[in-house]
Amino acid sequence: MDVAHLRIDSDRLWSTLEASARIGPGRAGGLCRLSLSDEDREIRDLFAKWCGDAGLIMTVDQVGNMFARRAGSDADATPVVVGSHLDTQVTGGKFDGILGVLSGLEIIRTLNDNGIGTKRPIEVVNWTNEEGARFAPPMLGSGVFAGVYPVDWALARESDEGATFGAELERIGYAGSAPAGGRNFDAYYELHIEQAPILDRKGIPLGVVTGGYKTHGMFVEVRGETAHAGPTEMQDRRDAIVGAARIVTGVNDVGWRYADGGGKTTAPRLVAWPNKVGILSASALVALDCRHPDPETSDRMLGEIEALIQEAGRKANVDVEIVQRWEYGNEAFDPALAGLVRDAAHMLDVPFLDMLSQAGHDAYNISRVAPTALIFTPCKDGITHNEAEHIESDYTIPGVNALLHAVLARANRS
Amino acid sequence: MDVAHLRIDSDRLWSTLEASARIGPGRAGGLCRLSLSDEDREIRDLFAKWCGDAGLIMTVDQVGNMFARRAGSDADATPVVVGSHLDTQVTGGKFDGILGVLSGLEIIRTLNDNGIGTKRPIEVVNWTNEEGARFAPPMLGSGVFAGVYPVDWALARESDEGATFGAELERIGYAGSAPAGGRNFDAYYELHIEQAPILDRKGIPLGVVTGGYKTHGMFVEVRGETAHAGPTEMQDRRDAIVGAARIVTGVNDVGWRYADGGGKTTAPRLVAWPNKVGILSASALVALDCRHPDPETSDRMLGEIEALIQEAGRKANVDVEIVQRWEYGNEAFDPALAGLVRDAAHMLDVPFLDMLSQAGHDAYNISRVAPTALIFTPCKDGITHNEAEHIESDYTIPGVNALLHAVLARANRS
Repeated sequence: MDVAHLRIDSDRLWSTLEASARIGPGRAGGLCRLSLSDEDREIRDLFAKWCGDAGLIMTVDQVGNMFARRAGSDADATPVVVGSHLDTQVTGGKFDGILGVLSGLEIIRTLNDNGIGTKRPIEVVNWTNEEGARFAPPMLGSGVFAGVYPVDWALARESDEGATFGAELERIGYAGSAPAGGRNFDAYYELHIEQAPILDRKGIPLGVVTGGYKTHGMFVEVRGETAHAGPTEMQDRRDAIVGAARIVTGVNDVGWRYADGGGKTTAPRLVAWPNKVGILSASALVALDCRHPDPETSDRMLGEIEALIQEAGRKANVDVEIVQRWEYGNEAFDPALAGLVRDAAHMLDVPFLDMLSQAGHDAYNISRVAPTALIFTPCKDGITHNEAEHIESDYTIPGVNALLHAVLARANRS
Repeated sequence: MDVAHLRIDSDRLWSTLEASARIGPGRAGGLCRLSLSDEDREIRDLFAKWCGDAGLIMTVDQVGNMFARRAGSDADATPVVVGSHLDTQVTGGKFDGILGVLSGLEIIRTLNDNGIGTKRPIEVVNWTNEEGARFAPPMLGSGVFAGVYPVDWALARESDEGATFGAELERIGYAGSAPAGGRNFDAYYELHIEQAPILDRKGIPLGVVTGGYKTHGMFVEVRGETAHAGPTEMQDRRDAIVGAARIVTGVNDVGWRYADGGGKTTAPRLVAWPNKVGILSASALVALDCRHPDPETSDRMLGEIEALIQEAGRKANVDVEIVQRWEYGNEAFDPALAGLVRDAAHMLDVPFLDMLSQAGHDAYNISRVAPTALIFTPCKDGITHNEAEHIESDYTIPGVNALLHAVLARANRS
């Protein structure tokens, strides 16, 4: 057949998404499939079966990243890799990450059905713990792969229930033997739902991501002292909850000051101890981040946040310490790969838009070690990390077909 | 013997306190003996054994309140009751509440040793779950006894781990058969460490509590919506953590505005869900209270807090609802009983001070159904709900002896 006429099987992709959506049902029709949970094991087992049925060879690395390989005709060639993640948030949707992995699988199935070989191997990857909902930080599997985090550090991460990442990985049977990292990719393509409403509002089915909102994140530890919630004079209080709340409030104020230019701030997590009625808390941990399309403005927001953390500490008479930092969104995606996506879109007559990514994605980490492209398909109203997350087949398939042809172009590159 | 020369055995009281302090050791030398835990069962069993050894008859009511009775010569007379609580905070001390119960026991032992009978029965009481650290609200056992809360409502309270008060009461063997409430007291005396530094700073060993700081408390439920912590525009966010943090910050500001007059505010507990990185939280619960020695000022603080809760909800674009309220500290203690304490102090040459209570105590609840006296002994620097809580025998025993004689005076009343 003329490869230019090749299209994925949209019904099969949809029924595969639906099969995934039956594993780890959450509230209100969404998914709650936390990393390394029983439900994560179940979707991993099913994904591995699908890959086996498609003739792929599976490799699992030390942090549970799964690489399913379709051989190429050139035994020495590095692979073209396509994927994303299969884990979800507590109130996750059925497509965030999942669409990227299962689109990779659908591309393989399409090539198989049509008897199309490639020079380079093609691999479908499922990165472990992209969400970070159970084990912080997010994008952990791809981060270890890209050398951002050491393997042992990742294995020692703890859930709220005190389970370690390493023990849970063993428990669900996905503590692989392959080294995490050190695999050379010819290219890494990640297709993801946009998680913002731009494509949906414009009615454009494909976004070619040229960069990210520069994002600074951190954990702040607040240390005070327990005391009676009643008689202790205001000036004698060292209440960690007050320090933490002043940080959250201040961070939110920074977001509002930069909102007109697209700036955003979040403090998504606040944990205090003992956090009981009748007693002031001795400690608290706050997670927070800021992001902005303009890197310098993002840095300025960070500076304001660092200052307000100190000020919150003074006001609440508590010690504050930034105990962990992360940064992403300023990575460079590969212009040649983006060009191949645009070429495919032109060939398929798929309207597209160059755009920035506002959320973090595994592609950020992988861009440090391999040429990387990130592409978006629309999600309704940009709603995600919410059970109302929704995508339409009509607006999704064009992007997957563009991915197919971009992958093919690269996989046959000499 | 001449009853006027009667004194408690301070060494025995201290060794009894030390035996208690070995049950439920917490961090740094304090206690962590949460209500209805295994440790609570252990101290209850030991207290019951001590009471049995002293010839007392134990009655346990439906919410686990323990009444240990020494008969009087008048079979129809209502009892003089002395007590407090044996549970502690997570970072509790060894004396908060405990001193009141074990002083009651020591008074009984002293009467026994000296062969002194009384006309009225004397009972030593251990109220269940004064702290509220595991099951909110605090002062729950005495609250049910006084008709503030229904029995079934109390039994349905849940811990953070999802255990119910009723099931845990059964589990530790203290779900008694006696009705909670309906027992008539001739008088209720509660001795407690002050939990503020006034007596300690003045070097006065005894405080006669004439009233309380009027205290308003509540739980506020904050309801927002989950969404991605990254791309969601500031104006589209309905982040429950931001709403909760703005409430905590505002409540703290109110406390500072009234601090010069002795006003205090606290938001000791903030729980959010899902409270994970990467996602905005859909809901949060905040506990808060305000207190002031002047009741009208306390009411004004409450009004300001109610207004700021609404304002925080508007700013964070979340729904806020006050889902539970409580109030205490405006109760009237019994002047006649306070007079008997002062008489005893005069007789024993114990300096004392009339004062207000800043913290909540079971005595507040009991004052609704019986003539009640609350008396304080010093604690070092007023530190409590902290493992550094400390009392000195020299500054404690005079108050216990005053209690002994105040109890005796009432127990022999015709």
